[in-house]
Amino acid sequence: MPETKIDVLGIGNAIVDIIDKVEDKFLEDNGLAKGHMALIDTDEAETLYGKMGPAIESSGGSVANSMAGIASFGGKAAFIGRVANDKLGDIFAHDIRAAGVDFQTSPATDGLPTARCFVLVTPDAERTMNTYLGASVQLGEAQLDKELIASAKITYLEGYLFDPQEAKAAFHKAAHIAASAGRKVALSLSDGFCVDRHRAEFRALIVGGVDILFANEAEICALYETEDFDKASAEVAKECELAALTRGASGARIISKDSIIEVAAYPVDKVEDTTGAGDLYAAGFLFGHSQGFALEKCGQLGALAASEIISHIGARPEADLKELAQAKGLL
Amino acid sequence: MPETKIDVLGIGNAIVDIIDKVEDKFLEDNGLAKGHMALIDTDEAETLYGKMGPAIESSGGSVANSMAGIASFGGKAAFIGRVANDKLGDIFAHDIRAAGVDFQTSPATDGLPTARCFVLVTPDAERTMNTYLGASVQLGEAQLDKELIASAKITYLEGYLFDPQEAKAAFHKAAHIAASAGRKVALSLSDGFCVDRHRAEFRALIVGGVDILFANEAEICALYETEDFDKASAEVAKECELAALTRGASGARIISKDSIIEVAAYPVDKVEDTTGAGDLYAAGFLFGHSQGFALEKCGQLGALAASEIISHIGARPEADLKELAQAKGLL
Repeated sequence: MPETKIDVLGIGNAIVDIIDKVEDKFLEDNGLAKGHMALIDTDEAETLYGKMGPAIESSGGSVANSMAGIASFGGKAAFIGRVANDKLGDIFAHDIRAAGVDFQTSPATDGLPTARCFVLVTPDAERTMNTYLGASVQLGEAQLDKELIASAKITYLEGYLFDPQEAKAAFHKAAHIAASAGRKVALSLSDGFCVDRHRAEFRALIVGGVDILFANEAEICALYETEDFDKASAEVAKECELAALTRGASGARIISKDSIIEVAAYPVDKVEDTTGAGDLYAAGFLFGHSQGFALEKCGQLGALAASEIISHIGARPEADLKELAQAKGLL
Repeated sequence: MPETKIDVLGIGNAIVDIIDKVEDKFLEDNGLAKGHMALIDTDEAETLYGKMGPAIESSGGSVANSMAGIASFGGKAAFIGRVANDKLGDIFAHDIRAAGVDFQTSPATDGLPTARCFVLVTPDAERTMNTYLGASVQLGEAQLDKELIASAKITYLEGYLFDPQEAKAAFHKAAHIAASAGRKVALSLSDGFCVDRHRAEFRALIVGGVDILFANEAEICALYETEDFDKASAEVAKECELAALTRGASGARIISKDSIIEVAAYPVDKVEDTTGAGDLYAAGFLFGHSQGFALEKCGQLGALAASEIISHIGARPEADLKELAQAKGLL
């Protein structure tokens, strides 16, 4: 087995978020499904942006956010994802490197511009996302650094990668490389609609090639086509070695072969924006797991990171998560 | 006199802010003068950005911020400024239009990219700015919409326009058009270093062609080369019809031919980021003045808008300033 250089390698869509606070009526008027992620094309992106108010831009992307979180905990994180050779691409690359994440994927020099996600935050702090995938759809096997994958304790993949065809192929390839090197493969189900689009393939993957699964309540229920969280939990227990199922303020359930652990959410004074809550939960959990911590502590680190991210606008940590965890006696 | 279509027309640099929280040591290590704005070239921009942490992007530009504030008060605002035909230019144009400001300046299709300002916010909430002017330096007389200028009650110009040669010529031309149409001309001194660069010209302009002057303590002291604010106030009283001099938490002094009025600052729970404080003070004051309000009320509206902007990151209002002013009994 090659030397372990990286704690967690993330592979996902490289996206810059364009964040605007809106009223619920804005979602209704534009037929947007609250709390979900929808894929939009160039024209839809243009139309939606034209209706949006003044916004702020902040680097995002689900697994990319997780990697920024792992680096903030002091973990060694790397990221593979595709931006274009444009200003948003520069911003994405700058921000993830500045967060301490190893990011070497070459920007696409032709084709579509860097991906952006219009994040609409309603007064209840819920986020509704509309993603123009752009250069992300060009992520393919060519971008996979095999040595890097083989050298990472865990390779973390987002379900969103199943949307672009080429990226899905890259996903499978990466999972294969990691498994062949004796490493762990983690998967985020990403979004309920994403699960609807790829249910059968996700289920096959979970049975056959995923060591650690992340899902929120809506996603795990969508996966097993039930409205009963306990039923979905029981299903996943049969199919997956380790699953962390998040339920917002109700905490998370960690299911392994040996145990079912409920870990409470960290209290937050005021929830500003839930964007990135799941991404940062995964960051804390995976960081802990890569360090060999007990599952309960992994869950506590996840809950802590999630509490930091929902207390401000944007999906990348503003606080030093290592210091935060030390202050709470978790590190 | 043509019909009044616009309350306030702003002419200034069209800039997207790239905002990062840093420690004071970062300023020291990079030789940056705290609280000031420095102009940087392409290489310096590259180097500084490379050293900065993960950032967020938000539309800025001093007078552009003021125009967004006037629109938020319910005033009719327009802006003239130059962006490039690139992604940051799209973002700037989207944000200022979405704020309700009339913005028609065509983007530059060749030459330099859209201007950006690296805003470094220290733990004391002070901001230190480094601006790469880019496409802003191409703002010239060709971009001046004469009818628009003649139709605005007040044309508001930023001192920063004196830095690029072409923009300075446009500045003088715009002031001339406004004055010839019987309109008012307002000027912001922008920055203490900017005053040092253009002191003689600013003084000539204030005597000859400015109706309303905005400056903070450092700027007005730099203008009259004194460290004594009262002395500087006495000087400006002799040279300018109306001046609003801001002093941060100590409030502002409004000097007219008939009176000197001190208006207190609005208390703020926690000052997050002082970026845009002066811009939004000018927004409130100019909105009030364009509505024919008494000077004291103009000052109160300025103080209110400034208090909103310093309570969050970024230099564009997040709250509805009209509602805020109504709640305070000012409108």
